[in-house]
Amino acid sequence: MAIEQNIVLLVGGVGGAKLALGLSEILPPEKLTIIVNTADDFWHYGLRICPDLDTVMYTLSGLVDPVNGWGVHQDTTLTLDSLKRYGENPWFRLGDQDLATHLLRTHLLRSGVSLTEIVAQLSRQLGIKHTLLPMTDASVATMVDTIELGEIEFQSYFVQHRWKPTVKSLRIEGIESAKMTDQVKAQIENADAIIIGPSNPWLSIQPILSVPELRDTLLQRNIPRVAVTPIVSGKALKGPAAKIMQELGLAVTPQTVAEFYGEVINGFIYDQRDNLVKLNNVNTLSLDTIMKDRTDKIRLAQQMLDWIGEWT
Amino acid sequence: MAIEQNIVLLVGGVGGAKLALGLSEILPPEKLTIIVNTADDFWHYGLRICPDLDTVMYTLSGLVDPVNGWGVHQDTTLTLDSLKRYGENPWFRLGDQDLATHLLRTHLLRSGVSLTEIVAQLSRQLGIKHTLLPMTDASVATMVDTIELGEIEFQSYFVQHRWKPTVKSLRIEGIESAKMTDQVKAQIENADAIIIGPSNPWLSIQPILSVPELRDTLLQRNIPRVAVTPIVSGKALKGPAAKIMQELGLAVTPQTVAEFYGEVINGFIYDQRDNLVKLNNVNTLSLDTIMKDRTDKIRLAQQMLDWIGEWT
Repeated sequence: MAIEQNIVLLVGGVGGAKLALGLSEILPPEKLTIIVNTADDFWHYGLRICPDLDTVMYTLSGLVDPVNGWGVHQDTTLTLDSLKRYGENPWFRLGDQDLATHLLRTHLLRSGVSLTEIVAQLSRQLGIKHTLLPMTDASVATMVDTIELGEIEFQSYFVQHRWKPTVKSLRIEGIESAKMTDQVKAQIENADAIIIGPSNPWLSIQPILSVPELRDTLLQRNIPRVAVTPIVSGKALKGPAAKIMQELGLAVTPQTVAEFYGEVINGFIYDQRDNLVKLNNVNTLSLDTIMKDRTDKIRLAQQMLDWIGEWT
Repeated sequence: MAIEQNIVLLVGGVGGAKLALGLSEILPPEKLTIIVNTADDFWHYGLRICPDLDTVMYTLSGLVDPVNGWGVHQDTTLTLDSLKRYGENPWFRLGDQDLATHLLRTHLLRSGVSLTEIVAQLSRQLGIKHTLLPMTDASVATMVDTIELGEIEFQSYFVQHRWKPTVKSLRIEGIESAKMTDQVKAQIENADAIIIGPSNPWLSIQPILSVPELRDTLLQRNIPRVAVTPIVSGKALKGPAAKIMQELGLAVTPQTVAEFYGEVINGFIYDQRDNLVKLNNVNTLSLDTIMKDRTDKIRLAQQMLDWIGEWT
């Protein structure tokens, strides 16, 4: 496939952002759109925090902390530390540089600007030329039902409780009344291929696919729709995906991931370290999917684009 | 007057905070209440900023920047500087440590907690034992009508335009519907003396006196009601008081200040460097009113208390 084709990438946070970076190094700005999960977004001290959007934005702009894969490089937490003077004990790390993003975004949201417009404005100011889109402008929230603590908000599960509680089930509050934005719809309808990043299928991709009409819009597109596994050698590359799969009674394999996506995909990339039983109606390819540095990201992105290009 | 008597102090920012500190070093916690101007409060990047309350709070807690007289000592502006990445040019300095105050206060305000309760909570957490009260829980705003820019918000006049525009008149938006709080009412009714700090009479004290019923509540108290001049040797100790007096066609003298307060006061302290024509029904005293260090603040506070004590 020539790079003149339009690629739409669906991602969550750190893992997906790596592939986004790889693709952005190859594809010209008008040919790559990144649709980002917002079901992890939450309010903290009156600020609207969008962890996945910020991770992608910081990654593409080069601001990201290269060790964590999220947050701003060499950021400090003077404001957060000062909250302790008031007896507060903030459990979500907000860096001082990072706070500027949350302050401005929250201020604009409260002024009536849509999240889509805000993301466009902020990412443009950071020098990002490719298009970043939140999956929806609506406020939705992944809720995690746990054995130990009952149902809690995602960030409480993920950060405050360090994904230790046992997951019984997940639901996305507010998703029924969320709307697919015109921008998301147009980009999917205009895509020549859809790529689902190596993000958590349950926590990051499922919310995107659950935006009303979004899944159907994808399914109507007779184009390559390819997912990359986030599970390698029985482990998640990052985060709680493997642990949640176990708790939901699923085998921690790329096979499970591919089957979870079902008809949404017609292509699946799994890691060369793993095996895959043949899937019906799904092209498969094994690659080295681990992205440690910039070279890995570009290599994987290029291999994916080359493979998808061969289909057509 | 014995220190067992209840003192209520009305103040604005830096100058008044100095006297508040002096009094707080002498009077036990339950004997001093500081009522603070809130007409300078404003919204900035979605945060509610209360400059005078914070100045008093930081001064009494020892957090204050000793050079500026406001803000937190050795504070940085990493968040503010990071806003510039997004093309913003914030004109109001918000330090990183200081931001914790604004974040928490705004969050509590949006959660429905009254400013009075918030100030009590924050000042208690900072170790302040004396009572700080906002003049009202209502949102009011000093508006400055200027020759050059028309009517602008106070902080825009004061900070953004460095009090350069020529003042034609002042008004306090929303003051008609503001309510005196139960706490302010109770403290004034329970006071054995009222002291008006060396704050800007037009910008800091007039808003307090304009809270509906507050002035009448003061006037009904047959107790010492003593103001301290903020004008010494034809100059304001700090800020635009002298400039505004000139622009309003007033002589820049303590006499003008005393006459501006009129029947609200029955006692007036002017500086020993100045002269005062005798005022009807107003006891007067000249003192060294300049407070450079902690010793000065305590000395002036003690001299005032001693003098007021002689009346009764």
